[in-house]
Amino acid sequence: MTQKLKKHRRSDKAGLPPGSLIHVGEKKMGDVALHLMRYGVDVLDERSLSDFHDYERKDSAGVIDWLDVVGLHEAPLIEEIGETFSIHPLVLEDILNTEQRPKTDEYEDFLYVVLKMLDIDEQTGDLTIEQVSFILKDNLVISFQERIGDVFEPVRERIRSTAGRFRRLGADYLLYALMDSVVDRYFVILERLGEQIEDTEDLLLAHPDQETVRSIYKMKRELLILRHAVWPLREAVNTIRKTESSLIQLQTRTYFGDLYDHVIQNIDTVENFRETVSGMLDLYLSSLSNRMNDVMKVLTVIATLFIPLTFIVGIYGMNFKYMPELEWKLGYPFVWVIMGFIAFAMIYLFKRKKWL
Amino acid sequence: MTQKLKKHRRSDKAGLPPGSLIHVGEKKMGDVALHLMRYGVDVLDERSLSDFHDYERKDSAGVIDWLDVVGLHEAPLIEEIGETFSIHPLVLEDILNTEQRPKTDEYEDFLYVVLKMLDIDEQTGDLTIEQVSFILKDNLVISFQERIGDVFEPVRERIRSTAGRFRRLGADYLLYALMDSVVDRYFVILERLGEQIEDTEDLLLAHPDQETVRSIYKMKRELLILRHAVWPLREAVNTIRKTESSLIQLQTRTYFGDLYDHVIQNIDTVENFRETVSGMLDLYLSSLSNRMNDVMKVLTVIATLFIPLTFIVGIYGMNFKYMPELEWKLGYPFVWVIMGFIAFAMIYLFKRKKWL
Amino acid sequence: MTQKLKKHRRSDKAGLPPGSLIHVGEKKMGDVALHLMRYGVDVLDERSLSDFHDYERKDSAGVIDWLDVVGLHEAPLIEEIGETFSIHPLVLEDILNTEQRPKTDEYEDFLYVVLKMLDIDEQTGDLTIEQVSFILKDNLVISFQERIGDVFEPVRERIRSTAGRFRRLGADYLLYALMDSVVDRYFVILERLGEQIEDTEDLLLAHPDQETVRSIYKMKRELLILRHAVWPLREAVNTIRKTESSLIQLQTRTYFGDLYDHVIQNIDTVENFRETVSGMLDLYLSSLSNRMNDVMKVLTVIATLFIPLTFIVGIYGMNFKYMPELEWKLGYPFVWVIMGFIAFAMIYLFKRKKWL
Amino acid sequence: MTQKLKKHRRSDKAGLPPGSLIHVGEKKMGDVALHLMRYGVDVLDERSLSDFHDYERKDSAGVIDWLDVVGLHEAPLIEEIGETFSIHPLVLEDILNTEQRPKTDEYEDFLYVVLKMLDIDEQTGDLTIEQVSFILKDNLVISFQERIGDVFEPVRERIRSTAGRFRRLGADYLLYALMDSVVDRYFVILERLGEQIEDTEDLLLAHPDQETVRSIYKMKRELLILRHAVWPLREAVNTIRKTESSLIQLQTRTYFGDLYDHVIQNIDTVENFRETVSGMLDLYLSSLSNRMNDVMKVLTVIATLFIPLTFIVGIYGMNFKYMPELEWKLGYPFVWVIMGFIAFAMIYLFKRKKWL
Amino acid sequence: MTQKLKKHRRSDKAGLPPGSLIHVGEKKMGDVALHLMRYGVDVLDERSLSDFHDYERKDSAGVIDWLDVVGLHEAPLIEEIGETFSIHPLVLEDILNTEQRPKTDEYEDFLYVVLKMLDIDEQTGDLTIEQVSFILKDNLVISFQERIGDVFEPVRERIRSTAGRFRRLGADYLLYALMDSVVDRYFVILERLGEQIEDTEDLLLAHPDQETVRSIYKMKRELLILRHAVWPLREAVNTIRKTESSLIQLQTRTYFGDLYDHVIQNIDTVENFRETVSGMLDLYLSSLSNRMNDVMKVLTVIATLFIPLTFIVGIYGMNFKYMPELEWKLGYPFVWVIMGFIAFAMIYLFKRKKWL
Repeated sequence: MTQKLKKHRRSDKAGLPPGSLIHVGEKKMGDVALHLMRYGVDVLDERSLSDFHDYERKDSAGVIDWLDVVGLHEAPLIEEIGETFSIHPLVLEDILNTEQRPKTDEYEDFLYVVLKMLDIDEQTGDLTIEQVSFILKDNLVISFQERIGDVFEPVRERIRSTAGRFRRLGADYLLYALMDSVVDRYFVILERLGEQIEDTEDLLLAHPDQETVRSIYKMKRELLILRHAVWPLREAVNTIRKTESSLIQLQTRTYFGDLYDHVIQNIDTVENFRETVSGMLDLYLSSLSNRMNDVMKVLTVIATLFIPLTFIVGIYGMNFKYMPELEWKLGYPFVWVIMGFIAFAMIYLFKRKKWL
Repeated sequence: MTQKLKKHRRSDKAGLPPGSLIHVGEKKMGDVALHLMRYGVDVLDERSLSDFHDYERKDSAGVIDWLDVVGLHEAPLIEEIGETFSIHPLVLEDILNTEQRPKTDEYEDFLYVVLKMLDIDEQTGDLTIEQVSFILKDNLVISFQERIGDVFEPVRERIRSTAGRFRRLGADYLLYALMDSVVDRYFVILERLGEQIEDTEDLLLAHPDQETVRSIYKMKRELLILRHAVWPLREAVNTIRKTESSLIQLQTRTYFGDLYDHVIQNIDTVENFRETVSGMLDLYLSSLSNRMNDVMKVLTVIATLFIPLTFIVGIYGMNFKYMPELEWKLGYPFVWVIMGFIAFAMIYLFKRKKWL
Repeated sequence: MTQKLKKHRRSDKAGLPPGSLIHVGEKKMGDVALHLMRYGVDVLDERSLSDFHDYERKDSAGVIDWLDVVGLHEAPLIEEIGETFSIHPLVLEDILNTEQRPKTDEYEDFLYVVLKMLDIDEQTGDLTIEQVSFILKDNLVISFQERIGDVFEPVRERIRSTAGRFRRLGADYLLYALMDSVVDRYFVILERLGEQIEDTEDLLLAHPDQETVRSIYKMKRELLILRHAVWPLREAVNTIRKTESSLIQLQTRTYFGDLYDHVIQNIDTVENFRETVSGMLDLYLSSLSNRMNDVMKVLTVIATLFIPLTFIVGIYGMNFKYMPELEWKLGYPFVWVIMGFIAFAMIYLFKRKKWL
Repeated sequence: MTQKLKKHRRSDKAGLPPGSLIHVGEKKMGDVALHLMRYGVDVLDERSLSDFHDYERKDSAGVIDWLDVVGLHEAPLIEEIGETFSIHPLVLEDILNTEQRPKTDEYEDFLYVVLKMLDIDEQTGDLTIEQVSFILKDNLVISFQERIGDVFEPVRERIRSTAGRFRRLGADYLLYALMDSVVDRYFVILERLGEQIEDTEDLLLAHPDQETVRSIYKMKRELLILRHAVWPLREAVNTIRKTESSLIQLQTRTYFGDLYDHVIQNIDTVENFRETVSGMLDLYLSSLSNRMNDVMKVLTVIATLFIPLTFIVGIYGMNFKYMPELEWKLGYPFVWVIMGFIAFAMIYLFKRKKWL
Repeated sequence: MTQKLKKHRRSDKAGLPPGSLIHVGEKKMGDVALHLMRYGVDVLDERSLSDFHDYERKDSAGVIDWLDVVGLHEAPLIEEIGETFSIHPLVLEDILNTEQRPKTDEYEDFLYVVLKMLDIDEQTGDLTIEQVSFILKDNLVISFQERIGDVFEPVRERIRSTAGRFRRLGADYLLYALMDSVVDRYFVILERLGEQIEDTEDLLLAHPDQETVRSIYKMKRELLILRHAVWPLREAVNTIRKTESSLIQLQTRTYFGDLYDHVIQNIDTVENFRETVSGMLDLYLSSLSNRMNDVMKVLTVIATLFIPLTFIVGIYGMNFKYMPELEWKLGYPFVWVIMGFIAFAMIYLFKRKKWL
């Protein structure tokens, strides 16, 4: 949780009234960017807004607005958006506080969905976490991201292509498509993690070292992050699927049902990996014990073999005047014979104990 | 999860629209094979279709079609089948994505069931995993397999034999029979695993080594695979049993109830084995510690016995000019007496500490 | 699960149609024995039937038949019984398959109960497992056992004695009495296990060895068997207690409620024992580590004390021509003084580190 | 569970008909004592009954009888009481069987509550367990204890003092007061255990030894006993609180709600302690490993330092005729220099590895 | 739980009648302080009451009283307050007993909420625990704290500032604001803990020692305290949110919903940290084993290398009269060659075993 802890300073906000719009989280980019996609069967209007005041709602049937707000650090802008679309202050507060756990809140005339957009940093290979919030209203989706760069490009492509049936579908389908992009990325991350797990397993069986443990520990933490992203998402998607709100049409519910299945699959894989990774630590410890045993056996065999022999040669290194053996002609070879016998006896014992 | 991770490339699909028919999974065979069994009390027509266009539906009462599609990599064919039988695109997508977790989805006029067909590779002894999907419509069952080779031969035999009452029963019973074949194979796999567990236990009590740990680890992973195959299956079978759909007749529900019991039995055995296998690792570690203790005791006894004695003989190996003991006539035997006394004292102590 | 795995060959049955009557389990005895007890307030007729055709049902009010079938390996006989009493083929299959988990199935005109009759083999002290099935119909109980020898003798005695009020009660009470006998035996087995646990604990605190671990492991496995016998039984008894079937009279439900409490008590004790046994392994490992520590301390004290001394005496065992100390008159006693000083310093250090 | 196992011989009862009144448990005292408290606003009659026949029920409004039966080993007496108050035989059986888990059973005209009265033996400091059963009828509470000595004295005092409002309240309040006394004692026991935990923690950080482990193990077992006393009690109290029986008046339910909170608090503390105690074992093992590490480091430093030096002095202790170094004038000091160099190099290495 | 156990003496209360007003907990301050804030849109009256009799309720619409009672050790005062506001004696008892677990109790005309106000002691860095109780009545909130110093200052500030819309809102909003302040402090504490976890992790990977373990253990205990503060709070807040009482207005429920989310976030973080901390202990143990392995390898390499060599030089230190080698001219260099060969062979072996 190292990264997570660093960027959030929730404590700066403690004690302020609810609905206080203070951005909790790293300031992840420069200016706030506003991007509008307005589309219908025959309509397609895509542009960046330099100012929110350039935006004007047009309520023509079948025309859907997707307003994408990138950057959360300009609280007044968020407040203005909130007022324009009459969003409850508590929701605005949640949008700005990037420590939310994934959830869906139903309000009278809009749905609020928040989830975690995970990705892998191409340079470092680390997980990046970004909070994405969605507001679904009639013919309108507003998305709030923390910084530039997202997983929504395929959705934009599908809107742009006139061929697709996407433009015939409602704003609820747009919400589904965006959430599905986020969840699809989870699959990619899990696949990458799965490959890492495999590599670590091979390493573990070949020559495990302290580095392997650290990589196990790192994977454990990443799985924790994933877990906290997908577990509550299940409930969030289910809420949409089962909502009584007319914002979600009957035919779109099937799609949210499919999304729900994907989330469950993610949860399954995460739990599966967690168990596998836990098992790896046990494997590591047992292999460590095993090697320790091997080391100790070598030491014991050598020491047990030579310490008695060294004692014997020590005896005949004593300088007593009257030591009859020293005078014997066969004293020296005799000592060799005795030592040889002791050595063989020891080796026989070690063999029987399977230490050799 | 090594195998599983290798064959699936779910990430290739990330960002595509839902219902995109791309086969996710290993391409497990050459051409797609279509096999049709059409049967009724007096009817039996079994043949391979070289082309799906050869298939024609005949809605005569009591005549049931079982269309078996082997091979999932020709998306257009699947799409055509889907259109012919008006199957929802999301279902087709699920059929092609072999990462599904077992489930039953109820649609207005058909049931979709997906589960895992496990088997043991005769050569390697490894588990093989294959996803099987079933579509149940009026008098029709379509099965989708990943590759040639399945566990359905006994079902085909029963259909072929005119004696059996199988042909009098409906398509729902056929679905039951196919699912039952899959679950029956789980029993066989669990039996095999049970024997492996027994063997490993014997090995563990006789002479455990690092190899044993790997085999424990392998069994753990296979149990994980089994677990992920049977746990969600419980819910899937229960959904069929309790469905309000008229596709499942009252009398067949008893059979699905029986299947449900079998799945529960499987779950029980899997959990039982998991616990046994976990206990084995503890047993292994404790036996390792025990042997380490034995090794250390031998080393300690030998070292503690001989190091002081070696010190004593070292003393009288010194070359000081004035060492009165060296001149004594009984110096040498006296040293032997002292060393004998020390040795006996040590051995007595070791005996009391139960190290010998 | 060693024993369990050996006797069951469920795989022989894989792929057969449901309701195939093949006995799954060890053939535990020679011929199948049929034993009939017919009783009412004034009636008592007890005899062995050499042939099932000798049996004739008499539906006089208040007369209850208890047909006890011992031995499951003659499938045709079981099939005949099934037909006579119109028992569903799936139930017959369950009766013959001795791998069932305890359960109660409600059918229109009968109840099917299956549970595990555990006992302790007097010779080996091992647990024996036998599956017992009960069919409850109007005024009729049929019991199916795997082999001769059961825990029902007290029930038979109570039927035989005219004094008891047993004969006034219905077939549902007979079912209760039989199930109660089985559960009562669990208490006996748990008591025995409890004594073993106590003995092992004493051993563990006095002088633990590898044998103790094996006995812990054996107890763990027996607890697993018990656990799988009692946990599902809870549900099975509860089903009877709450059934809407008129086969169970109101007044008998109180008795089944009592039986339910006994099962819960058994579950409690099993879980309790499981935790105690797990704790014992920790205790064992910690005591092992402790003893290892003791061994290592002895080795270290001895080696650390004598290795430097041996080095010193080694110095003066060198044969250099010019070693002034060797010529000193007080060289020898001086070395003793130095060595004594070193020894005392070491011992002081060990005392301070509490190694002595 | 050592104590528990010794005193109960449930197996003596196996096979007997249900409702057989045999006392299961230690015979904990001599004669059975009957104690009656009859009270109302203006009534107070407290006496010991030498014989149950001395008891006569008087149904005057507002007069409550508390019959306290101490000693369970005279089955006929219990049976007589049961008949007098028309208590179901199964309840009588439960009263006599001191292995009950805490529960509340609702009957048509009475409530049966059983729980565990725990206390600390002043001499040994061990936990004592006693089963207490309560029968609540109209204006009547019967309590059954195993032996003399209980936690009810404060309740008796409150009844005796005319000032209290206790006497105005019903029999249900008396039941509450008695149960509350039992639960209050749990708090005392948990406090004592908490102090023990603190002491053990201090010991563990200062100088842990095998004795500490035993005390941890002992606390674990006591927590198991407490756990099995309080967990089911929650359900038992809840049953009373939510009962539809008119025996519990509306105003008393608030008190049972309070009692319920106390039980939950107990459960919380027990679980808290269990976790703390488990953590202590880990702490112990890690401190053991640490000390082992220290011991091994000392051994390794000493051995690694002196073994090479001893080898060197051994070289010059050889008696070869032609060893040029021995003739050198500066041979001896030169050897010292070399050894000094080796020693310093070693010590430098150890310092760098932080072993010194 | 060390601190907790010390300050509470619940046992002093065992056996007293329910509703006995005895303060259970440390006497944390001198006199009881009463502080009143009376506010409405145009009203603001803030003062300390030296005596409770100075307080007079004024039921003008839109005027809200917040009575803050600091110090619980004057039972008669609490009793008087209870009588004045007709609070049930059991609630008063709960207020005084500072061992409550967080909960909400609904009474006919008031709500009772109790929770834990945690803070970090600036000097010692330890967690401090204080119980806060709230009574919510019409236009009235009474808060009970254990001692001076709380987290409510921001709330007071918001009331004082005329600008805020706070004063237009009801007493239920005041209750929300106070509870929110408490929960906000949990975030701060968790952030601090998160930083400690990070530091400990760095330490653990750099140079772990016994001190690290103690700090892990300390964090574990603090997480236990937090866990017991937040888990039951979830239920308590939910009760308020879902209550049917008219004391909580519809619009305020949204705020309690937000508070509920915050509590869930806290729970998530606590569980997350708990898992991370557990993993750290495993990491520590594995790194300990690793270092032990390193130490043992060094010992084994040195001993295995030099013990045989020392044996060889010992041989030629023997004083036998007839040892031919000693007379050889090349005896001495030959021994060096042999020893060199043995040393190289050993080193080669160690390299192959990857011990060097």
